[in-house]
Amino acid sequence: MFIESRCVHHSAVFYFLLIMEIRQPTLILDEARCKQNIKFMSDKAKTHGLELRPHFKTHQSHAIGTWFKAEGVSSITVSSVKMAKYFAADGWKEITIAFPVNIRQIDEINELAASAQIHLLISSVETPMLLNKLLKRQVGVYIEVDCGSNRSGFKFNNKIEIQTAKGAINRAEKLKFKGYYSHAGHTYGAKSKEEVESIAKNSLYNFISVRNDGEEAEFCWGDTPSCTVLDSFEGVDALSPGNFVFYDVMQANIGSCDYGQVAVAVGCPVVAKKKAELEIIVQGGAVHLSKDNIEVEGEKVFGIPVTEGTWLPLSNAYVRALSQEHGIIKLSKEDFEKYHIGDLIYILPVHSCLNADAMGGYISKTGEVLDHMSKKSRD
Amino acid sequence: MFIESRCVHHSAVFYFLLIMEIRQPTLILDEARCKQNIKFMSDKAKTHGLELRPHFKTHQSHAIGTWFKAEGVSSITVSSVKMAKYFAADGWKEITIAFPVNIRQIDEINELAASAQIHLLISSVETPMLLNKLLKRQVGVYIEVDCGSNRSGFKFNNKIEIQTAKGAINRAEKLKFKGYYSHAGHTYGAKSKEEVESIAKNSLYNFISVRNDGEEAEFCWGDTPSCTVLDSFEGVDALSPGNFVFYDVMQANIGSCDYGQVAVAVGCPVVAKKKAELEIIVQGGAVHLSKDNIEVEGEKVFGIPVTEGTWLPLSNAYVRALSQEHGIIKLSKEDFEKYHIGDLIYILPVHSCLNADAMGGYISKTGEVLDHMSKKSRD
Repeated sequence: MFIESRCVHHSAVFYFLLIMEIRQPTLILDEARCKQNIKFMSDKAKTHGLELRPHFKTHQSHAIGTWFKAEGVSSITVSSVKMAKYFAADGWKEITIAFPVNIRQIDEINELAASAQIHLLISSVETPMLLNKLLKRQVGVYIEVDCGSNRSGFKFNNKIEIQTAKGAINRAEKLKFKGYYSHAGHTYGAKSKEEVESIAKNSLYNFISVRNDGEEAEFCWGDTPSCTVLDSFEGVDALSPGNFVFYDVMQANIGSCDYGQVAVAVGCPVVAKKKAELEIIVQGGAVHLSKDNIEVEGEKVFGIPVTEGTWLPLSNAYVRALSQEHGIIKLSKEDFEKYHIGDLIYILPVHSCLNADAMGGYISKTGEVLDHMSKKSRD
Repeated sequence: MFIESRCVHHSAVFYFLLIMEIRQPTLILDEARCKQNIKFMSDKAKTHGLELRPHFKTHQSHAIGTWFKAEGVSSITVSSVKMAKYFAADGWKEITIAFPVNIRQIDEINELAASAQIHLLISSVETPMLLNKLLKRQVGVYIEVDCGSNRSGFKFNNKIEIQTAKGAINRAEKLKFKGYYSHAGHTYGAKSKEEVESIAKNSLYNFISVRNDGEEAEFCWGDTPSCTVLDSFEGVDALSPGNFVFYDVMQANIGSCDYGQVAVAVGCPVVAKKKAELEIIVQGGAVHLSKDNIEVEGEKVFGIPVTEGTWLPLSNAYVRALSQEHGIIKLSKEDFEKYHIGDLIYILPVHSCLNADAMGGYISKTGEVLDHMSKKSRD
């Protein structure tokens, strides 16, 4: 990140200067697309009478957080105590740490809970009693429900464990039962919009099936594919997707967004050309894009190269392989001829959350430097 | 990284205190193993009469660099201009940037070349002329040869392109031809030590086949599996492996090291238990371990959990899945009972280079904080 923040009066000129100045892989943010994505999800939540509690693990940025404030968001979701601290320091007052409680960080949790409304996730029957001993004041907790994602949380149909956890929460004076939380992350494995819909509907059905008759409980539901694609959220009170703020190649691939909605791209210097293979080598590797990939027609894809400015996919082009610093890009013959050593090529990431975390900062198309919690030092 | 560097008089006591203090995923370095690995490769190079020019992209650490100095190493290899700057600032005087030259960083290259002996890689026929116009003083260059890795460099059997590149170098007054460089990265895809040997021998044969009669040229050969496993390096002058400094699960899996040589592990807090699945959830995800994985008996493996202290693999245990912050670990029934919420579990990374880059710093078992170039802020 070599460009200092500065006033910009003419964005087209500035964008040209920005491109000229980029010397190594740089994460560029399309502010307009990002704000559109935020507005889309905020409007969707409002339309359905739901609260939006966006997951900030994707952007991890104070600056981008303020764009959610502008849409009236007041309660957020994060995936670590560290992230909760980062956003609490920025004035966010209601924060759900949507990750099984790490009791090794109890001092930090207690400190946070003194100045903000912190909600925790209960994902094991042992946790309520442990937490009750360690907390200094009462915090709200959600029971994490696994609706098919096979990650963390109680299986939706394990009524016994869920009731055991709820009983333990009710007996723990430092814990206040708030409701249920679920992230249907297995939608990411879908192959089409129809499959996302089918998985999401099924998962949502599973999720709300945990409600007991007459129980007062909030149902909070995450994951970008479901929240983007579903038309009905009956039984749910709040949405907490994260990825939609940028979307990415994986989301475009499963039909939860168009490529035209992807709001981040890595500008990578072209460093070599391989004529026989119609491949270009860029500086832009696993430490920039992350090794997450999708499979398309039997080939692994680590990113999609796009046109400058408009960021639309080049035809028949993809990042074929990544090593630590190398990216290898397959191009059409026509595009291969267009790119020269020393040019920049823009790559949409497969997984924007990991990409942004690896890059540790953004430059907007108008040249503004935006923070990221990981503040990775690349210069 | 929350522990300040301090004097340590009793390492066992300190190690206990260290473990007590770890609150979130922390990269722990076994200094003794690391120094043994360095000595092993240094001795091997000496035995074969070769220069060791270790690749510092794996550790990216000033502190670890000094352990190489103690073995008499004076020339190093890096994978970016930034890394060259990082180590030049630490007094290294001969640095090969083993990556196709990024001419967007020409100002930094010129600056570096003013105070250190910088060698560059030529991986495209267009580069010599471009570089000659942009360099302020003469630098040494190696022609990068692709011996089968299918990444960057000229195909070993493309004599025409190699001769074209060499001719262009010879005509460029700012470039001094040093020799040939190759990284046989496809050894990483081997399934056994025998396969590593076979790929390495074949690649080495391909590599030295580019030599012209009577040509004065250094042959510099990288990649940890080859350098570890081969018994003969005829035709080669220098070795530049990097990964061996730590090794990792991938190397153990292909037979280029034993688990007992792996010198880094991530200490991860246990945050939840899933009894029916015999799985534990840890804080320790893709942003800590990276998404690199190997396949063992049809299952993806993202890391290997090991015993405390001795770091030997738990039986039938592996990291089954990673998301951004979550690690999901399969354990035997016996080990599942042993681990409790709030414990630490140690995970050997699949790919230590990416793991160290993601973590951005080390703590040695004796509590010393060691730097990493990426200096990722995790607290």
